[in-house]
Amino acid sequence: MTTTKTDGLNDRASQVTVLGLGDMGSAIAKTLINRGYRTTVWNRTASKCAPLVDAGATAAATAAEAVAASPLVVVCLLDSTAVDEVLGSVDAAVTGKVLVNLTSGSPSQARANERWASERGAEYLDGKIMGDPPYVGTPNVMFLFSGSRSAFDAHEPLLRELGTVVYHGEEAGSAAVEFMAQVAMGYEILIGFLHTLRLVQAEGADVAEFAERVASSVAALPPLLSSIGKAVKSGEYPPDLGSLNVQAALMDDLISHRESIGVEAVRMREVKDLMDRRIAGGFGAQGFSSLFELLAKS
Amino acid sequence: MTTTKTDGLNDRASQVTVLGLGDMGSAIAKTLINRGYRTTVWNRTASKCAPLVDAGATAAATAAEAVAASPLVVVCLLDSTAVDEVLGSVDAAVTGKVLVNLTSGSPSQARANERWASERGAEYLDGKIMGDPPYVGTPNVMFLFSGSRSAFDAHEPLLRELGTVVYHGEEAGSAAVEFMAQVAMGYEILIGFLHTLRLVQAEGADVAEFAERVASSVAALPPLLSSIGKAVKSGEYPPDLGSLNVQAALMDDLISHRESIGVEAVRMREVKDLMDRRIAGGFGAQGFSSLFELLAKS
Repeated sequence: MTTTKTDGLNDRASQVTVLGLGDMGSAIAKTLINRGYRTTVWNRTASKCAPLVDAGATAAATAAEAVAASPLVVVCLLDSTAVDEVLGSVDAAVTGKVLVNLTSGSPSQARANERWASERGAEYLDGKIMGDPPYVGTPNVMFLFSGSRSAFDAHEPLLRELGTVVYHGEEAGSAAVEFMAQVAMGYEILIGFLHTLRLVQAEGADVAEFAERVASSVAALPPLLSSIGKAVKSGEYPPDLGSLNVQAALMDDLISHRESIGVEAVRMREVKDLMDRRIAGGFGAQGFSSLFELLAKS
Repeated sequence: MTTTKTDGLNDRASQVTVLGLGDMGSAIAKTLINRGYRTTVWNRTASKCAPLVDAGATAAATAAEAVAASPLVVVCLLDSTAVDEVLGSVDAAVTGKVLVNLTSGSPSQARANERWASERGAEYLDGKIMGDPPYVGTPNVMFLFSGSRSAFDAHEPLLRELGTVVYHGEEAGSAAVEFMAQVAMGYEILIGFLHTLRLVQAEGADVAEFAERVASSVAALPPLLSSIGKAVKSGEYPPDLGSLNVQAALMDDLISHRESIGVEAVRMREVKDLMDRRIAGGFGAQGFSSLFELLAKS
């Protein structure tokens, strides 16, 4: 149902601009439109604008024109290279605007973007998205923000329309740090889980039933994770899963079992090696958390 | 308070015998005594018997004598080498008994023990313990059993005095498989967590606060683990965290970030490599679970 929009940008200034209409950018723009925000959209390939214009958005011809249309500019592009290109084309048009960059990227990229914005008199908020486009607009997508506190405060109601929102502080890289850490933690668990399923399958047990039991075990882990976090912070390492002396005795069994059935043992060997080194250093009475002391430092 | 026990073994047959009085064996024997079971104990170093005799147990001079004293024999020794030695010394005394071996060991060792017992006319139940000695007798220690169903059924009330009890089926190795898989899964999560804490620390964020947030994320994981288990069992791999095409784009960011701050990236590189191979094979629309197809088979 394409409708003809006759309003010019000058006649009807919008409240928010969305630059970048891939799956995620389109989902964000669509959500904002549906929640009643006057929205301007722009995409390098203009055809992506059509469904959003149908839904009520105004399409801008250039990124600079789109930025000029709203006090709040949401950037959601493919990667940081695209961000650099688009912001370069916009340049001084960002003066006086609030720039919210939801493109994936590193903490150092976030800090560089903040400097770029600051040099042009714009406020910068870095955002990282944990979740999938179809769930934008529900609590099942988490938006992590860091950077300008005043920008966050001013636009928090709009941002909360997009999903669950957490503000991680004024250091612009904080949201990206949290994202990198949380996502990596998820993949650590999931790849370890797949190798464990291979072990279970190699031994002839039912992988789906085992997965249910692991799900229960994992649900019971949070208190241990919290206590390990406290131990690492304090530098004191009480026996958590028992002392390293006791735990290390088990690792050889785990490793030799995996080797006997052809399942990889990368992490098990690493854990055993770290335990052996801590024990040799006289720390055998400490807990698993103390292995942190041996991990490579930056 | 040592009391003199004048009852001979012949005058007062016991209900259960415990072979091996390390920390775990002693905790098990103590719990059984406290719950009213007439208990015979034996340990290679006899002095370990004294506290249990004080508590009401009868000490046997040899393992064979201890086995003869009770219909149910619980074995809890240092390792499977010790089990082989002690059972070798007992030999035909096990005929007609139920042998419950709680010593840590592999699935194949459990199966070998079952054959040994069967050849001598004994029933065999293999057990694996997840938890620490001080918590024996509470639900916080889990006892996994597999092997003789009739032995389990006959002695389930006594076994339930020791902690949370789960019976994993008649295949004698099943409890050991579950133990190896569950424990390794725990270490996969915990070592990945320590590396993630190193990342967080390298970026100047608070590790204890991050641990609390990870604890929340992990608490939300069980449904995903269940669905991955089902996907692996079925061999159909719907997009779980999004398609591999989308997920793979993220992995380079994770890897380069970790490299830039000196944090190891072993699992992240492995995941990226597996994703690239699946995508190259034409499976980019599938989910993370499909990486299972590439893991080494036994």
